[in-house]
Amino acid sequence: MHIAVDAMGGDYAPRSTVEGSFEAAVGEGLDVILVGRRERIEEELARLGDHGGRLTIEHAEEVVAMEERPLVVRKKRDASVRVCARLVKEGRAQAMVTAGNTGAAMIAAKTVIGSIPGVDRPALAAVFPNRQGRTVVLDVGANVSAKAAHLRQFAVMGHFYAQEIVHTPAPRVGLMSVGEEEGKGTELVREVFKVLQETGLNFVGNVEGSDVFGGTVDVIVCDGFVGNVVLKTAESLAGYLLSLVRQELQESARARFGYVLAKPAFQEIARRTDWTEYGAAPLLGVRGGCFIGHGRSNARAIRSALRRAVEFCDADLHNKIGAKVEELHAQEKAWLDGA
Amino acid sequence: MHIAVDAMGGDYAPRSTVEGSFEAAVGEGLDVILVGRRERIEEELARLGDHGGRLTIEHAEEVVAMEERPLVVRKKRDASVRVCARLVKEGRAQAMVTAGNTGAAMIAAKTVIGSIPGVDRPALAAVFPNRQGRTVVLDVGANVSAKAAHLRQFAVMGHFYAQEIVHTPAPRVGLMSVGEEEGKGTELVREVFKVLQETGLNFVGNVEGSDVFGGTVDVIVCDGFVGNVVLKTAESLAGYLLSLVRQELQESARARFGYVLAKPAFQEIARRTDWTEYGAAPLLGVRGGCFIGHGRSNARAIRSALRRAVEFCDADLHNKIGAKVEELHAQEKAWLDGA
Repeated sequence: MHIAVDAMGGDYAPRSTVEGSFEAAVGEGLDVILVGRRERIEEELARLGDHGGRLTIEHAEEVVAMEERPLVVRKKRDASVRVCARLVKEGRAQAMVTAGNTGAAMIAAKTVIGSIPGVDRPALAAVFPNRQGRTVVLDVGANVSAKAAHLRQFAVMGHFYAQEIVHTPAPRVGLMSVGEEEGKGTELVREVFKVLQETGLNFVGNVEGSDVFGGTVDVIVCDGFVGNVVLKTAESLAGYLLSLVRQELQESARARFGYVLAKPAFQEIARRTDWTEYGAAPLLGVRGGCFIGHGRSNARAIRSALRRAVEFCDADLHNKIGAKVEELHAQEKAWLDGA
Repeated sequence: MHIAVDAMGGDYAPRSTVEGSFEAAVGEGLDVILVGRRERIEEELARLGDHGGRLTIEHAEEVVAMEERPLVVRKKRDASVRVCARLVKEGRAQAMVTAGNTGAAMIAAKTVIGSIPGVDRPALAAVFPNRQGRTVVLDVGANVSAKAAHLRQFAVMGHFYAQEIVHTPAPRVGLMSVGEEEGKGTELVREVFKVLQETGLNFVGNVEGSDVFGGTVDVIVCDGFVGNVVLKTAESLAGYLLSLVRQELQESARARFGYVLAKPAFQEIARRTDWTEYGAAPLLGVRGGCFIGHGRSNARAIRSALRRAVEFCDADLHNKIGAKVEELHAQEKAWLDGA
């Protein structure tokens, strides 16, 4: 198995990406293809020592910068993120990992790799910690709007991701709404509620924003607008609270001393809520794995993303999703034919 | 000025509501009408001592329970929350405060008190702390969907609320989306973007979930579905992080001792992020004030809500909103006539 890493993508690339790939290659025996400017990658590799031939370089001349409009990836045919997608398309890699421009990565994956048959819209999934375990929320931004059929596909993809990668045996799937009762929410939500009841998934009904961190549900399905707002609100609040803690604990000598004593406890909290632990968000529904990390990913986040990508390929998620989506399509067709 | 308090509404009512009203009456010289079962209210008042005649009781036989379907308020004509709305409608009170069933409170206010002329849809606003001050987000749940004209009204209402009640001199108004550039987001967002540019408000363009706690904007406009998800996600995350802190700080003697020393710092954080500090969410756009608190409001939250209600009436917000909304309607009509 080979994973393609966009060596040029991210705020700290190529240092973070090459270092994270090196650690995964040496520590876990992965074969990684580093995609980007050869001389820059070689420079970083030179610092790191022997990788036993597990790292290879695929030269890509261009880069899509973080602040560029994602659509430029259509013209930059030799951009590193696009070359990653091409390696997956051609079967030279089974999955790709990037911490670069998220929009460009999604466009490259969707257009170059393409979707699993039966999946109309790939969806970006985020994995949040909660009181009991982890909650998978999707879509968090691959699409700005969605129809009922798309949300059904998201539910299937979220189910298998939770089951195979997050290791939740029988994932409870909820539909994001503004009230728990059936009949609550927008017209779309009411329609999707009925659709999800027929999927054979463990659909538990409508859920609310309070369920994201509540541990009451394992998968939450929503459109990409709502999911993106959830993701960014949560990151923003966590950052705000952390900054308040830091600020307040510097206010007095007593508080500073207390903080020193309680520091291991805070480190444990930081570890449990650290999103680099999960490495990157999977773009579900494309043929092969595509993991998109935060722009500020460090080497550790890249390494985690690589681990997720390997689990993803090992679990054969792509075929499981495809089979279930086809089954639901066939079921629907049978009903329509019978009606 | 008189404020009507739904004495029976909330998890800890009538103790919390009567006590909070008593404190506001005695401490700040407010005149409060306590609405609900006379004998229960008198029982609570008997514990509290002399209020100098500032508290009066309006008997209401029925109650809408927290778990009841909000629509029952249409049939329960003598429910305490509905009697509160009637007092405002009749001018016997200038505003109402309730910590009861949110849906029932909104229905009572909208149907009994009615809207400010020009406002089609009242909106519930939430006030979040941020790195610089406070962010007003609306709608957080009065409506599940909205059209461009409604979002324009929300912007006007949010502007005046931020200016007069949160005391932000020239509120920056942002439109919730999934990317900052004009042209990002749903079709509705793109339409509203253009509409908000013509309002004369300090419209700063699209914002994202990360701006809720970022201090980059003072008012965020969104539909009630998105806003409700933001509100509940934020509450859920804050609760989760707090529970992690508590749990971890009990794990070792060292951590427990550290926590004792750092406690004043944590209390300061709790104070700054405490949502009872803001008391309740205003339902903007009804004639007169309507403040809806959390079901778990304590006496302190009720007192804060009363303070907000008084500020609201003093600032003559209802007329300011009405005048601006009418101005925008006239401006639009002139364009349409000219076109």
